[in-house]
Amino acid sequence: MAHIDLPAGMPGIRALMTYRPETALPINQLVEVLLQGPSTLTKGEREMIATRVSTLNDCKYCASIHGAIARAHLGDDASLVAKVANDPASAPVSYKLEALLGIADKVQQGGRRVSEFDVAAARAHGATDLEIHDTVLIAAVFCMANRYVDGLATWAPDDPELYARAGAFRAANGYLVPPLPVR
Amino acid sequence: MAHIDLPAGMPGIRALMTYRPETALPINQLVEVLLQGPSTLTKGEREMIATRVSTLNDCKYCASIHGAIARAHLGDDASLVAKVANDPASAPVSYKLEALLGIADKVQQGGRRVSEFDVAAARAHGATDLEIHDTVLIAAVFCMANRYVDGLATWAPDDPELYARAGAFRAANGYLVPPLPVR
Repeated sequence: MAHIDLPAGMPGIRALMTYRPETALPINQLVEVLLQGPSTLTKGEREMIATRVSTLNDCKYCASIHGAIARAHLGDDASLVAKVANDPASAPVSYKLEALLGIADKVQQGGRRVSEFDVAAARAHGATDLEIHDTVLIAAVFCMANRYVDGLATWAPDDPELYARAGAFRAANGYLVPPLPVR
Repeated sequence: MAHIDLPAGMPGIRALMTYRPETALPINQLVEVLLQGPSTLTKGEREMIATRVSTLNDCKYCASIHGAIARAHLGDDASLVAKVANDPASAPVSYKLEALLGIADKVQQGGRRVSEFDVAAARAHGATDLEIHDTVLIAAVFCMANRYVDGLATWAPDDPELYARAGAFRAANGYLVPPLPVR
């Protein structure tokens, strides 16, 4: 049961966003820029960074929904997304994405953990300043979202089909439209 | 030196906000709602929660500037802010704020660390659902901001006078106006 009285039947951050629309709006706008806005990182790559950080933070709702969004962007490559989430070293991704995932992992531990070496590795594989910036901020934003969702003990459904439907909807429509009803 | 090429002479998140205005806008709007918007928590109390979390995350820039903003709101009670930041149990604050700071400390460690007991303690001392919600989200937002600022190795000035001036300006003007120039 959630720690505060939230709208019934809404999972994760969606319940919180209905409860407090004043904070929901800028959070959705921030995520829209980072995960759906113009970028030289693909939407699938950006959602995999979000999924990896959410997995490290043990946030079932965020890891499940962003994993589903990543799969929708990537043509449902569930195996790739699961590898990136749980063991990036085993995932067949570009050297650049591997290095950016390494930076995201450090951000999850704490900002000061990101070293010049981590950044040099990403740059050596072609990452731009903006890609490094956005990777750090995506990882930081999910350290926020994961704490928000679990710090108030919101509901994380078990049904994978629910995440798959919501993930496909979100991948297609972005973060500025209301969610699909849960049913 | 910062990990990416940022505007010269701007400290902490201000350099990042100049570098990436698309993400700066929703971040500032979110912080404005939480720290300056209507609330039954005082602005000083909310800034002290931000300062405490930033101190736990060892983020010199955020802890210094939000400590200065808190002091500006509280009539420059430097001793109180330092106690809340470094050892809340020693700080002469209300039972309610002490309990909310306890929740913020748990959020800093991870969302799942917040227990029913932590929330019940805050409620027993008069905290409302919205105060508990906002405390969790303020703590989560600073887990983001601290990682963003330090994950890109931004500049944190040493001069306390600089933070005092910027803190007084921010306390008076909120988060939606450009910063004072650094000089």
